[in-house]
Amino acid sequence: MSGRLCIAGLGPGADDLITPEVQRALSEATDVVGYASYVARISPRDGLTLHASDNRVEMERARHALTLAAAGQRVVIVSSGDPGVFAMASAVFEALEAGPPDWRSLDIRVLPGVTAMLAAAARTGAPLGHDFCVLNLSDNLKPWSLIERRLRLAVEADFAMAFYNPRSQARPDGFTRVLTLLKDLCTESRPVIFARAVSTEDEALLIVSLGEAKPEMADMRTLVIVGSSLTRLIERDGRPLVYTPRSASE
Amino acid sequence: MSGRLCIAGLGPGADDLITPEVQRALSEATDVVGYASYVARISPRDGLTLHASDNRVEMERARHALTLAAAGQRVVIVSSGDPGVFAMASAVFEALEAGPPDWRSLDIRVLPGVTAMLAAAARTGAPLGHDFCVLNLSDNLKPWSLIERRLRLAVEADFAMAFYNPRSQARPDGFTRVLTLLKDLCTESRPVIFARAVSTEDEALLIVSLGEAKPEMADMRTLVIVGSSLTRLIERDGRPLVYTPRSASE
Repeated sequence: MSGRLCIAGLGPGADDLITPEVQRALSEATDVVGYASYVARISPRDGLTLHASDNRVEMERARHALTLAAAGQRVVIVSSGDPGVFAMASAVFEALEAGPPDWRSLDIRVLPGVTAMLAAAARTGAPLGHDFCVLNLSDNLKPWSLIERRLRLAVEADFAMAFYNPRSQARPDGFTRVLTLLKDLCTESRPVIFARAVSTEDEALLIVSLGEAKPEMADMRTLVIVGSSLTRLIERDGRPLVYTPRSASE
Repeated sequence: MSGRLCIAGLGPGADDLITPEVQRALSEATDVVGYASYVARISPRDGLTLHASDNRVEMERARHALTLAAAGQRVVIVSSGDPGVFAMASAVFEALEAGPPDWRSLDIRVLPGVTAMLAAAARTGAPLGHDFCVLNLSDNLKPWSLIERRLRLAVEADFAMAFYNPRSQARPDGFTRVLTLLKDLCTESRPVIFARAVSTEDEALLIVSLGEAKPEMADMRTLVIVGSSLTRLIERDGRPLVYTPRSASE
């Protein structure tokens, strides 16, 4: 079994945010597997087969990639951002664990990338400069009650919060509930960042107070950051800078 | 004022984990400012001045970089990992906010990078594949009581946890208290990852159960990840894979 599977992160969108490590894996691949929007970022070439699949089929995609690698192919499965943060790496390991024992001897590597929250934070200042938490707001794979409990505890811990998958056409209401809950628990002035498609031509940034935040400000391409109680704005011409100081007291 | 300040992340250590965006900023810089260990990673060239400083002088370093940029230089201030995660970006914005008003009109950009927890997670599987939190365990800038309170709430939320700066020669005891607290709150079998200097020639990885974890397993170059209650091992020849499944119930 000489095949190989790389689970690679393409970063938030711009080519100059893809690591050379990932570029090399792509240049050596015989097969690239992934959600169609991400596979579309890969340039076709002789000797490379592109396998684009739909959004909701992570487990099938993971098994397909493992099967190709087990057959001796050099496979790269692509995610946007970092593959380990709400992306394909966990799905691949779930498939690996449930699959044939010989899959465990495959050469499997995870190649990290710049995940969306780091790109969003960088574009707006340093909102994640102190302790923070990272939540997937989709309730496809966990109950709403767990999301709500984690939000309450995160506010109690005074974490800044990064939210992935805040809102989609199939789940228009969850994020409304998130904002209602946060408005109930936090002061209105807390900064909220809506960072859509950072580093792509569709990039859109919005910095508002929690009191001004509306569900429609997010869609499935938006990364949301809610500051901690200490997160501050620096006003200047144009967009303010948002940062969380390094120091905190009880 | 035609100067520019880029606050750039060099990634965890390997050159092939530095983004092309950061490499370009470095190639255009007149001045690189940073902690000596990170500045040592930058190749000298004509027209580039390297300003290496000591570990504990973040604010002086930030003011120095801003002063150089205000004088018209093209300055890159370097951090390892991502500059926005327990690195130089927040320090720069603290200095900016407290400094002369004309600093606010400077061209300042944060260039994201692969932060240590993503590199450590990638090397070991996908331990951060579900909701997680990120804590700086240094009590230099916050009281120990706050760290302890956040740990308790993080366990209650069942977050996986990534710990930066777990232990140093100046702070040998804090991490002992962290492990004691976690052993009190969590089952012994929970996976703990000690990932030292990932992607450098000094890389060392250790995967143990919480019951086996010892303070001496971490030093100032170690990133520690503690799994959630759902984090699992996949046994295979050599090191096991560690991952947190995407699904959770209450």
